[in-house]
Amino acid sequence: MAGCCAGLAAFLFEYDTPRIVLIRSRKVGLMNRAVQLLILAYVIGWVFVWEKGYQETDSVVSSVTAKAKGVTVTNTSALGFRIWDVADYVIPAQEENSLFVMTNMIITMNQTQGLCPEVGSFSWKEPWTSRPLRPCLSAGCGPGPHGPCFHSFFFFQIPDKTNVPALLKAAENFTLLVKNNIWYPKFNFSKRNILSNITTTYLKSCIYDAITDPFCPIFRLGNIVANAGHSFQDMAVEGGIMGIQIKWNCNLDRAASLCLPKYSFRRLDTRDVDHNVSPGYNFRFAKYYNDLTGTEHRTLIKAYGIRFDIIVFGKAGKFDIIPTMINIGSGLALLGVATVLCDVIVLYCMKKKYYYREKKYKYVADYDQGLGSESDQ
Amino acid sequence: MAGCCAGLAAFLFEYDTPRIVLIRSRKVGLMNRAVQLLILAYVIGWVFVWEKGYQETDSVVSSVTAKAKGVTVTNTSALGFRIWDVADYVIPAQEENSLFVMTNMIITMNQTQGLCPEVGSFSWKEPWTSRPLRPCLSAGCGPGPHGPCFHSFFFFQIPDKTNVPALLKAAENFTLLVKNNIWYPKFNFSKRNILSNITTTYLKSCIYDAITDPFCPIFRLGNIVANAGHSFQDMAVEGGIMGIQIKWNCNLDRAASLCLPKYSFRRLDTRDVDHNVSPGYNFRFAKYYNDLTGTEHRTLIKAYGIRFDIIVFGKAGKFDIIPTMINIGSGLALLGVATVLCDVIVLYCMKKKYYYREKKYKYVADYDQGLGSESDQ
Amino acid sequence: MAGCCAGLAAFLFEYDTPRIVLIRSRKVGLMNRAVQLLILAYVIGWVFVWEKGYQETDSVVSSVTAKAKGVTVTNTSALGFRIWDVADYVIPAQEENSLFVMTNMIITMNQTQGLCPEVGSFSWKEPWTSRPLRPCLSAGCGPGPHGPCFHSFFFFQIPDKTNVPALLKAAENFTLLVKNNIWYPKFNFSKRNILSNITTTYLKSCIYDAITDPFCPIFRLGNIVANAGHSFQDMAVEGGIMGIQIKWNCNLDRAASLCLPKYSFRRLDTRDVDHNVSPGYNFRFAKYYNDLTGTEHRTLIKAYGIRFDIIVFGKAGKFDIIPTMINIGSGLALLGVATVLCDVIVLYCMKKKYYYREKKYKYVADYDQGLGSESDQ
Repeated sequence: MAGCCAGLAAFLFEYDTPRIVLIRSRKVGLMNRAVQLLILAYVIGWVFVWEKGYQETDSVVSSVTAKAKGVTVTNTSALGFRIWDVADYVIPAQEENSLFVMTNMIITMNQTQGLCPEVGSFSWKEPWTSRPLRPCLSAGCGPGPHGPCFHSFFFFQIPDKTNVPALLKAAENFTLLVKNNIWYPKFNFSKRNILSNITTTYLKSCIYDAITDPFCPIFRLGNIVANAGHSFQDMAVEGGIMGIQIKWNCNLDRAASLCLPKYSFRRLDTRDVDHNVSPGYNFRFAKYYNDLTGTEHRTLIKAYGIRFDIIVFGKAGKFDIIPTMINIGSGLALLGVATVLCDVIVLYCMKKKYYYREKKYKYVADYDQGLGSESDQ
Repeated sequence: MAGCCAGLAAFLFEYDTPRIVLIRSRKVGLMNRAVQLLILAYVIGWVFVWEKGYQETDSVVSSVTAKAKGVTVTNTSALGFRIWDVADYVIPAQEENSLFVMTNMIITMNQTQGLCPEVGSFSWKEPWTSRPLRPCLSAGCGPGPHGPCFHSFFFFQIPDKTNVPALLKAAENFTLLVKNNIWYPKFNFSKRNILSNITTTYLKSCIYDAITDPFCPIFRLGNIVANAGHSFQDMAVEGGIMGIQIKWNCNLDRAASLCLPKYSFRRLDTRDVDHNVSPGYNFRFAKYYNDLTGTEHRTLIKAYGIRFDIIVFGKAGKFDIIPTMINIGSGLALLGVATVLCDVIVLYCMKKKYYYREKKYKYVADYDQGLGSESDQ
Repeated sequence: MAGCCAGLAAFLFEYDTPRIVLIRSRKVGLMNRAVQLLILAYVIGWVFVWEKGYQETDSVVSSVTAKAKGVTVTNTSALGFRIWDVADYVIPAQEENSLFVMTNMIITMNQTQGLCPEVGSFSWKEPWTSRPLRPCLSAGCGPGPHGPCFHSFFFFQIPDKTNVPALLKAAENFTLLVKNNIWYPKFNFSKRNILSNITTTYLKSCIYDAITDPFCPIFRLGNIVANAGHSFQDMAVEGGIMGIQIKWNCNLDRAASLCLPKYSFRRLDTRDVDHNVSPGYNFRFAKYYNDLTGTEHRTLIKAYGIRFDIIVFGKAGKFDIIPTMINIGSGLALLGVATVLCDVIVLYCMKKKYYYREKKYKYVADYDQGLGSESDQ
């Protein structure tokens, strides 16, 4: 019991500090301070000030809506004068994070289900004539010579190759409104890309520009493609994918008003024809109709166009004690490197190394070997 | 060779430990232990127990399906009695991570392509009458007075302003089933939000409630909006975006059954009319029809409604040796701060500071300066 | 002033190093070196070489396009011979990150709005007959016995239960082309899953196989499901969700050509019928038609099928000075553990502990207690 109390008293009321040899040497002293200063400069300057090592980070959680605006007119032999508005060229009408604008197309009108042509085989889908069936589109034929296929009446098909220039080339002037709501869950911080200092009047007429209007959320389609270093008209022929990248890197130790979106643009598909399959961007969809007899007709559209993917990313940082302490701790441990380095110089490289070793080290042999080998200071 | 062996023997068979001055002083001893205890409490209590600093983390990878359910009836002068089911108000019928429920609309029926009216100009799309063309909707006119535009026959247009209250106000009672599959790739751990202890019988009739049914994956639309502090009827007029946030923060050192989803709701669009463009949420789409002559008609619908974005986020943590060692290492380094602090007190602030300095330091001058300046212990 | 100069000179031109006791003991020496070697092996072998602790990491940002290909023929009593191509079974025609292939369906054709049947109540949507109204589909009836509902003429409804086997069972042979563009923002590194050494000729005919063609981006639908350990035909009846997971774990300190995608497949929905609601995957959509009088008809389709979610994830690592220094620092601090451990053995466990304690410690009492209690070396 007394032993325990003595031990506890020794533990609580004694303070142990290492014994130090102070070597008065200009060379070594300066070198030691220089190395320590370097390590301190790294810890304070690089880790804390530049890389914000005292901050905890969180990734952004985002929600996006996109809306196109624009009207154009085309005049072709197959379709005549035709007007195209948002409901006609945005397919599908509504998506999250993405918006497809059709710029070119191959239309095959008025297809019906039928049988592939053989000698004399009658298609009960062609009441107008008893002529042999028109050949089906090869892509539409099922297996075998008598298999089902898609017939086309009234061949209003635009030639198999895509139009050059693109049919809806005026889409270059259409605009895209992007609304983005971001949230950092760890810090419960949320913000929108339509900033609170932007008025409705400004929003009704602005167009995004990296220099003059960097926070206007309305983008001209042609500018988006040009900013990525590509040609809209070139891209509109076979289609492609454009990325609208919104970066939200925020320092939440500062005012919330300094947390701002940064827009950049990048083409996501490749123009490389030699290492590609199905270049550009297109997909097929159909519009379905019924005639009086209830038979279903369809217009098959191979739609080429530009899909605008809105990609939101970024990190927020805010002061937190743990990364701060981790960096302080490892900085303190690194300061020990200065001592190790200078020890090596002092004890192994300098002329007086044996003298210094005498001062620093105290040799103690195994007790069994007697006291004779002790050399102490 | 002999030198190398001696050096190696010295390296392997010698153990070096710092020489220590043990100062018996109650004040300093207690202060030293107090600072060490504080640092230990921070490392063990805060870093390891509270913030789980011994764990490696991974972000969630998620897949979501959403399905609406509900039927309602409306009675308007333009459309008469009309029933609306899922196929009518969910547009598009299928999306990932998102589901749009139409609550209000402006319908312009039976539009055809035509020419804008001028004196006497005949539109070959109006066989019923030789009257001058009805004016096109201004939004539908291409450039120039004779440009193409969209005509509307049989004007069944609901007035230009959106309906108040919303047409499908009964959507407040519709329900939304959300199925969510999450995966933490680093730990190869996956789970679904429909937990294994929830029976099919329960699922057929439950509605989510934060207190009574926190794991029922079926949400009443009105409750979703109310939980975010907004009014469904108010939101249904011009539409909006609601976020259903599913948080999966899991401690994988515990049982897998404790890894549970936590639902929260947030309105993602803003009601702020002064700093907004195109408030609420709406988009245009069209249904296309052909008449006997093959001419295409369309019904243009400006759909207002609530888009429900299902946002899944979260982190999993599991014990890993590296973050553990990093935190232990920096904790050990921080313990050195106790020594630095107490050294400052003992060697510079206390009355016996010179005495203690004598005990701690051994001054060694440059050898060249002779032995005279040595003062040692 | 002189005091300041002296202090500064002392600070800059003095080098302090701890005084050391060197104990020549084979046992303790070897143990000390063994513990230090263990710590070094952990730091260098595990932290730096295996876990790449010298690297900063970044998460992938991704964009995906998916395109299906395949044609099949069905022959049913309700629909007769019918051919199905991409425009018929991919719904909606275009999505980001996801593609739905319809494999089975329940079709209810030619529905119109009407009134629910009561004795003698006339439906003005049935000009062909004055018979009492056919009963409405119960799901289609609004509240009350006279409420609106959906009528079906010409009952071409495939039975209420889904078809077994699935109607489009040949979808097993369809293929899916996946194009994926990834980007690591922190390192500004981007890449596509169609690698630069893959030729267009190869791409026109290859099918993904984990062993023989691991980088072909074209997947056979049946193989995707089989690779996840499930049966396509089984899944095609009631539908389901398949995940195509693309992992991009890249070491950017190596050549960019070594940054490659790794494909894996996982079923995301559950077959567990006892803890599930609405098993499989299905949704309803409608095709709308107008008749001569302008009345709208619709064909309601309950589409069952497999939705393929393309899930892209992964991390890139690149050398960075900060994580390197943090790990070096904590490694240095951990080396101190070797000293603590051996100190305990030497000072408390060995036979000569009191002897060693004499050599290591120098006891200093409070000055007030006189010099008598000093015991020094």
